[in-house]
Amino acid sequence: MSHTSKISDGACDHVTEFRLVHADCTWSRQTADSERIEGQLSDAKIYESASEDGVTWTVVSPIVFTYRVIQCERLLDASNDTLLFGHISNPTELQALNNNSKVMKRFVVIDETVNDLYGSQVAAYFKARGVMYKILPLPTTEENKSMTLVTKILEEVHKFGIDRRTEPIIAIGGGVCLDITGAKTGVNFANCKNKLGSYIPPVAALLDRSFLCTLPRRHISNGMAEMLKMALMKHRQLFELLEKEGRHLLDSSFQTLSKIPENVHTDAASLSMRLSIETMLEELAPNLWEDDLDRLVDFGHIISPELEMKILPALLHGEAVNIDMAFMVYVAHERGFLTEEEKRRIIVCMRNLDLPVWHSDCTLDLVLKSIAERLKHSGGRLRMPLPTALGKARIFNDTEESTVCQAFKKWCDEQCETTMKPE
Amino acid sequence: MSHTSKISDGACDHVTEFRLVHADCTWSRQTADSERIEGQLSDAKIYESASEDGVTWTVVSPIVFTYRVIQCERLLDASNDTLLFGHISNPTELQALNNNSKVMKRFVVIDETVNDLYGSQVAAYFKARGVMYKILPLPTTEENKSMTLVTKILEEVHKFGIDRRTEPIIAIGGGVCLDITGAKTGVNFANCKNKLGSYIPPVAALLDRSFLCTLPRRHISNGMAEMLKMALMKHRQLFELLEKEGRHLLDSSFQTLSKIPENVHTDAASLSMRLSIETMLEELAPNLWEDDLDRLVDFGHIISPELEMKILPALLHGEAVNIDMAFMVYVAHERGFLTEEEKRRIIVCMRNLDLPVWHSDCTLDLVLKSIAERLKHSGGRLRMPLPTALGKARIFNDTEESTVCQAFKKWCDEQCETTMKPE
Ligand SMILES: NC(=O)c1ccc[n+]([C@@H]2O[C@H](COP(=O)([O-])OP(=O)(O)OC[C@H]3O[C@@H](n4cnc5c(N)ncnc54)[C@H](O)[C@@H]3O)[C@@H](O)[C@H]2O)c1
Ligand SMILES: NC(=O)c1ccc[n+]([C@@H]2O[C@H](COP(=O)([O-])OP(=O)(O)OC[C@H]3O[C@@H](n4cnc5c(N)ncnc54)[C@H](O)[C@@H]3O)[C@@H](O)[C@H]2O)c1
Ligand SMILES: [Zn+2]
Ligand SMILES: [Zn+2]
Repeated sequence: MSHTSKISDGACDHVTEFRLVHADCTWSRQTADSERIEGQLSDAKIYESASEDGVTWTVVSPIVFTYRVIQCERLLDASNDTLLFGHISNPTELQALNNNSKVMKRFVVIDETVNDLYGSQVAAYFKARGVMYKILPLPTTEENKSMTLVTKILEEVHKFGIDRRTEPIIAIGGGVCLDITGAKTGVNFANCKNKLGSYIPPVAALLDRSFLCTLPRRHISNGMAEMLKMALMKHRQLFELLEKEGRHLLDSSFQTLSKIPENVHTDAASLSMRLSIETMLEELAPNLWEDDLDRLVDFGHIISPELEMKILPALLHGEAVNIDMAFMVYVAHERGFLTEEEKRRIIVCMRNLDLPVWHSDCTLDLVLKSIAERLKHSGGRLRMPLPTALGKARIFNDTEESTVCQAFKKWCDEQCETTMKPE
Repeated sequence: MSHTSKISDGACDHVTEFRLVHADCTWSRQTADSERIEGQLSDAKIYESASEDGVTWTVVSPIVFTYRVIQCERLLDASNDTLLFGHISNPTELQALNNNSKVMKRFVVIDETVNDLYGSQVAAYFKARGVMYKILPLPTTEENKSMTLVTKILEEVHKFGIDRRTEPIIAIGGGVCLDITGAKTGVNFANCKNKLGSYIPPVAALLDRSFLCTLPRRHISNGMAEMLKMALMKHRQLFELLEKEGRHLLDSSFQTLSKIPENVHTDAASLSMRLSIETMLEELAPNLWEDDLDRLVDFGHIISPELEMKILPALLHGEAVNIDMAFMVYVAHERGFLTEEEKRRIIVCMRNLDLPVWHSDCTLDLVLKSIAERLKHSGGRLRMPLPTALGKARIFNDTEESTVCQAFKKWCDEQCETTMKPE
């Protein structure tokens, strides 16, 4: 019998650890001392402890999520396999699919506006590839981001019929469309943002920046706020790229391909996207279910949820995030983490991206309420990510209310008037 | 740079493997050759491959589920910690909770009938423990097993307010109540059983057999069908226990504590429950998300879903399962896996548990249709679990239609009349 001290039921410390072996279609428990059975060993373990009061089994079952992010070009070109097979990372599986004569099926959920722009190209792609498809255009707006749309998708998927193991559902559109199709990766509920949700990552996320050419300028700005977040938290080079090329990227909707002097192998549009993806994945991969509450990616997301729900739909998500970040830059400055010059550079960069750096509805009351909410939902600690240099940050639990108030005052003094003027 | 051949994007075989290290609040990617950073290493990995066409990141993120099953007594006794803290396997966490002066909250979803029987005891337990609680009685029947009830629960939980990390929702009742509260571990949709569902295991399942004393006899039989399933698939001792003591267990609603001669340390009620739990966990733990389609626990669940949906609510789940199992015993006999005597013993055991072993609505058409459905949803293989001896089984893909038809004929010949007579 093997003993472990980490898992215990209090009343009894004698815990037997079992591994699981598969042989002859059956799984069997096996202790360290028991006779070895030949067969596949599972990663799962069972810990059993018996006492006068009963028996407790503690099961530890690991699940492995494998998902892909692909930055690519010509996604709707019929010769490009990515849309059909991009999610498959196992070459044997890919081979098997290519040799299979069965007609494949794909169910596509697409934002209505995006459908008007690209729907016929999507249809043409699947026709050219001999795929049986169904395209479902939906009004995937923030206001409609509820279980009702999720149920609608489920009903249509059920009618069409797919093999849920091999025929992934494809979502084409903005964040709302992707969240809703991810079957509740996050939908609004009881007037709270993303209240309902599980975090099953999509098998693949495909990013082709050529789609951005039709995206309204304000939405490009909006998306760039999240790029800037990653830059400020952990990547000075990305920050400097956005500082220098951000305005041009916005003006060109990430379409031009002018090489950048520092790295002749790539262009600013591809490089900034790539660095944003890499920094984001670095933080996401080890903390998929956000068990660790100390998260740099929460930067810009402390005050913004309250602000967003207060004035929806006046502010877009990234805009609210940017207002939050701008304020936090003042907090970081107040605490002596950022120099006046660093603070200035960040605010100028935000303005160059046409992002709001202040808002009259972001009152001191709202700021303090958001911080109190944060404390309540983060196990009693503030866990406030703050930049400590350009592209560097740490998480702090010790920001005083007086510091927040002083930062707020200075923020209003310096940013309020300039922001209110139309550009 | 390190290379791996298992993960590839076809166009390019040069894949860089990154591990993730946590230092100074930030996660960083690290290759095998790069300078070691001191810090916590994640289990997650990122594989990056770049080609002319773009960049692919394959992320492999493990998530570990830890859940407990506790067979106990006096669950509603105020001196028993199990209901409050049974889900906690980490002693440090338990200590912290015991030292915490904050008032705890618990939200309880309870079946209406169960509430009439035990509701006041549940309230008394939480009152005695100084816990702020809310009890929500619901009509959790198979007919109501839909998203509507799930939404109702979510609304009430939201109103009450709990810390979802430390204050687990408690469900008390039958399988429907547990499934619905498991926030969609399985709800019916589009007239299909358990069509919608994620499989996030509850943090703890608490089993106190004294509750069975108020359960109607027919429902005890019903539950014993799933015990018999595990016995037939993988545990001869459990089968023989049910064969010998099953009738008595049913008559006494698992309440008596007469020691069994073979094992004086326990009684038939506790032992049969324990063996059922152990065999079930053995099969569940290594295959939590049912990625492996070859599952012994599918025994009795090939024909029963069709049968259940056809004649709901005339048959209970376990009854439908038992009819399916009885038929499969005939298939196993037809194929020469079970002797006539073994077949007879199994059927007699089922009858002793008051379980139906035949049903006029279980027609040959329905059987063949169920098998065809199974083929469609199991990647083209039949994957039919069949007993090969008492307490032994294997999974077969090669059962001929003619064998099924012959087994069906014999099953009807031998079982139809006797079953139709009221006992
Ligand atoms: N799942 C996640 O990781 C994640 C991350 C951040 C945000 N979100 C969620 O995403 C939502 C915000 O997403 P969003 O900013 O993309 O908003 P959105 O989904 O509302 O899309 C913005 C607008 O752009 C249009 N559009 C999209 N692609 C277009 C294109 N190629 N050409 C022309 N028009 C196009 C859409 O029709 C829509 O009107 C929020 O609900 C947020 O919670 C999710
Ligand atoms: N999550 C799982 O692992 C799992 C496994 C098997 C079945 N299920 C699901 O569970 C459902 C069947 O569950 P069920 O058979 O428990 O049916 P059920 O939930 O309908 O409960 C049966 C009846 O017993 C009553 N009852 C429950 N406990 C009682 C008690 N202690 N005293 C008196 N009455 C009591 C209930 O009021 C109900 O009328 C099916 O929907 C099935 O899909 C889930
Ligand atoms: Zn965001
Ligand atoms: Zn079942």
